[in-house]
Amino acid sequence: MAKQPKNAISPTRTEDFPEWYQQVIKAADMAENSETRGCMVIKPWGYALWENIQQQLDKYFKRTGHQNAYFPLLIPLAYLEKEAEHAEGFATECAVVTHHRLEAEKQEDGSTKMIPSGKLTEPYIIRPTSETIIGAAFSRWTNSYRDLPLLINQWANVMRWEMRTRLFLRTAEFLWQEGHTAHETEEEAIEETRLMHGIYTDFITNHLAIPVVAGEKSEVERFPGAEMTLTVEAMVQDKKAIQAGTSHFLGQNFSKAQDISFTGRDNTQQHAWTTSWGVSTRLIGTLIMAHSDDDGLICPPRIASQQVIIIPVTPKEDSRDAIIDACEALATTLRHKDFHGEPLRVQVDKRDLAGGAKKWEWVKKGAPIRIEIGPRDLESRKVCMQRRDEDTFEKHFMDKEEFIRDCEDTLQEIQNEILRRATELRDSNISECSDLTEFEKHFSDPKNDQPGWLITPWAGSNEEEETLSKKHKISIRCFPLDKQDGEEAPCLITGKPTKARAIWGRSY
Amino acid sequence: MAKQPKNAISPTRTEDFPEWYQQVIKAADMAENSETRGCMVIKPWGYALWENIQQQLDKYFKRTGHQNAYFPLLIPLAYLEKEAEHAEGFATECAVVTHHRLEAEKQEDGSTKMIPSGKLTEPYIIRPTSETIIGAAFSRWTNSYRDLPLLINQWANVMRWEMRTRLFLRTAEFLWQEGHTAHETEEEAIEETRLMHGIYTDFITNHLAIPVVAGEKSEVERFPGAEMTLTVEAMVQDKKAIQAGTSHFLGQNFSKAQDISFTGRDNTQQHAWTTSWGVSTRLIGTLIMAHSDDDGLICPPRIASQQVIIIPVTPKEDSRDAIIDACEALATTLRHKDFHGEPLRVQVDKRDLAGGAKKWEWVKKGAPIRIEIGPRDLESRKVCMQRRDEDTFEKHFMDKEEFIRDCEDTLQEIQNEILRRATELRDSNISECSDLTEFEKHFSDPKNDQPGWLITPWAGSNEEEETLSKKHKISIRCFPLDKQDGEEAPCLITGKPTKARAIWGRSY
Repeated sequence: MAKQPKNAISPTRTEDFPEWYQQVIKAADMAENSETRGCMVIKPWGYALWENIQQQLDKYFKRTGHQNAYFPLLIPLAYLEKEAEHAEGFATECAVVTHHRLEAEKQEDGSTKMIPSGKLTEPYIIRPTSETIIGAAFSRWTNSYRDLPLLINQWANVMRWEMRTRLFLRTAEFLWQEGHTAHETEEEAIEETRLMHGIYTDFITNHLAIPVVAGEKSEVERFPGAEMTLTVEAMVQDKKAIQAGTSHFLGQNFSKAQDISFTGRDNTQQHAWTTSWGVSTRLIGTLIMAHSDDDGLICPPRIASQQVIIIPVTPKEDSRDAIIDACEALATTLRHKDFHGEPLRVQVDKRDLAGGAKKWEWVKKGAPIRIEIGPRDLESRKVCMQRRDEDTFEKHFMDKEEFIRDCEDTLQEIQNEILRRATELRDSNISECSDLTEFEKHFSDPKNDQPGWLITPWAGSNEEEETLSKKHKISIRCFPLDKQDGEEAPCLITGKPTKARAIWGRSY
Repeated sequence: MAKQPKNAISPTRTEDFPEWYQQVIKAADMAENSETRGCMVIKPWGYALWENIQQQLDKYFKRTGHQNAYFPLLIPLAYLEKEAEHAEGFATECAVVTHHRLEAEKQEDGSTKMIPSGKLTEPYIIRPTSETIIGAAFSRWTNSYRDLPLLINQWANVMRWEMRTRLFLRTAEFLWQEGHTAHETEEEAIEETRLMHGIYTDFITNHLAIPVVAGEKSEVERFPGAEMTLTVEAMVQDKKAIQAGTSHFLGQNFSKAQDISFTGRDNTQQHAWTTSWGVSTRLIGTLIMAHSDDDGLICPPRIASQQVIIIPVTPKEDSRDAIIDACEALATTLRHKDFHGEPLRVQVDKRDLAGGAKKWEWVKKGAPIRIEIGPRDLESRKVCMQRRDEDTFEKHFMDKEEFIRDCEDTLQEIQNEILRRATELRDSNISECSDLTEFEKHFSDPKNDQPGWLITPWAGSNEEEETLSKKHKISIRCFPLDKQDGEEAPCLITGKPTKARAIWGRSY
């Protein structure tokens, strides 16, 4: 297949980045809007990514001693009232359940109308996050220091009544995991917060090929009720930031509000130290924006729904069966191979469709490797391989045995190449800046509506941070962990000498 | 460990079956009630069963060409109004979302009160099942016969405002999978309905060790909107029936109401034929009631959270480390073994607890095999094995190598034995009956409040079925598939000759 003169996705990234994003999702058939306000339907090709994320991340959680559990979807209002700071930060825009019955009312035209009835004395909200309800369970489960640590994770749907939504990145309902832990000591809880932050960094970098910046949120940007929020910030191709995952040290704030207390080793009554941490289907949106091109999705092999697509090329009826058999046999061989501890995911596309249309579909869907086998290949035991990360669409003709032998290596090369590009994008778009005029010019340049991130010495107050953020529609994405111990330099705004460095940028 | 004189669970099954059930769940630490009305917290030991059910059943679904996807939690009322019969059967007791905001109102005493605001013009219900919302998506996705079949499954939470709840068996919120498919022809849709029914029968019999009766529901008991409902009915130890899974042929009822239509091969516009099928966390309740005994949970090895528990017996400090090392080494060896395509699930219990208490905990939690290794075993390379299915608590002393070699066989023996017992229970409690007086006596005998099932020739009307059901608090559980082609016999109630056989019983 030669590269079509035209890009498969219209508009292109440079023409209209947000619309390009929507069109990639459509072209790859990953998700669509539903008639439920702000809620999406995640279609199989998109959901398979979530399944892979779930399975792979779950192994990290279990390896570090966490167990899965499940807690109620509905949260009593009384729970929120106990944790005012958290509730005000979180529960203001949420779905409220006030009735528990519908009555079918026959209309004159024969149709039926459904009327809510059975008003609840105590309404519930659909969980926007589960600190309060899991805290109530932890309170029941914790009597002695011997009951700690509690290391619990939940895979669940949550709901926030978002005004402006965008598939995967910001939807009213989304899927996520939320870890919640309770510990005997402050040190242990902080260690847990950092451990999970490290797992997110590793997972997103090495599985999703997104080289996140790992850092701490400013007080302004912290999770409501947290004492420290660690974040992993991804840069996508329009240079905006996406908060891809967070890990919160909650101190004793929730444990005091919810009475998660225990008899300690010294026989005194103490409050536990808690953490929470989560990633969501937002990761899928981040992945799309980070890697895809003007021909559609580019999906890192480790997370791809299918890693190898085999397309039988059957121009003549008489060789058709033999070619399809050869494709199936190759698929079976590949499925017995192993890529990072999982069997290779391989699909033979036998649909009765024109070859060109079929191949473009897999380009748009971002399958890492496409293999074609035609009548001549059958005799010569060769295959034609194309890699999704090569936008030249080069055809690699090779012996089938060679392809089989090197298949995992090729997948790893693709994985590495996708990570390399994303790293290059990130590194060439973070600049140091210690001058306020320059800083303001960078973020208000009318000729550059996709400004990169700036890293600045920062010792400003919350008010100064908020003023600057509002003025330029930016925010402190984080204080990157590996940049806080260098030379002192004058703070961007106060001039006070500081070792602290903040990264600023636009964000989704 | 000798058998304690007293049973671990109080009351016993014969003393109070429903209360025994609650106490088993508590003793095995599987779930508990929450403060959200009718909703449970599924604790790790219970949730792990659900994870195993999910993983194992999902393989069946994928092997038969189904794909997972995710659809919105909230259903617009307009969708229900389109499908009146379904909605009236289903959506009358459900959670209704009417507001999308909470306002925090400071009280005089300093506390905060949360007040619902932001009233929705169109309320939503939380899905009690997703036929309507998935149907709306299918309507968008189906244009040509080439788009069919659609073979979609969803793992999700659903909610029904149940008045009387019971952990796992009937809760307001529960977890389930719901398959939804659309087909070009009636035959294909019926074939799909039967295929999934067969998968449920196979899975529940062979993985959960529950020998279900596979049959068709009567018209009275059918899913609202279905033309045929196939069911798998489990008998538990108090001889009640539990509907463990259902597969529905929906005809064109939903496709007409929701316009799931396509251009056929003959170029005419046609409505698709749809199916739906599901199992839920109810399976866990069924499993508990089917197998457990007066010492707690008995869990079939294929589905058990942990299959082998290794307990180091460390009376003396100087041999402690060596014993623990030996236990860990054994665990590692076992984890490299394979039981039905999955690595063995093995846990070493190193907690600092008295040996007896520790062992009783694993008895109550239903771990299939317990292994003890003490100082003498270390020298002789022996282990002491106990099987949860043996209520004599016999200690099997054997060479460690022998135990390792036979471990999968032992697990399979336990699996078979649990299935054998459940089959014996079922078969000795289903009797044929063709005499109405005898039938009524069976179900109204004051000396037998746990009557078994009766199988009767049946050609009665819906009204006759309902009258008889109401009178004796029973129902037709199903027309068992393998019993509909025998001799004609006079119907229990009408005397009309019929080949049809119905199974009657009490149920949860």
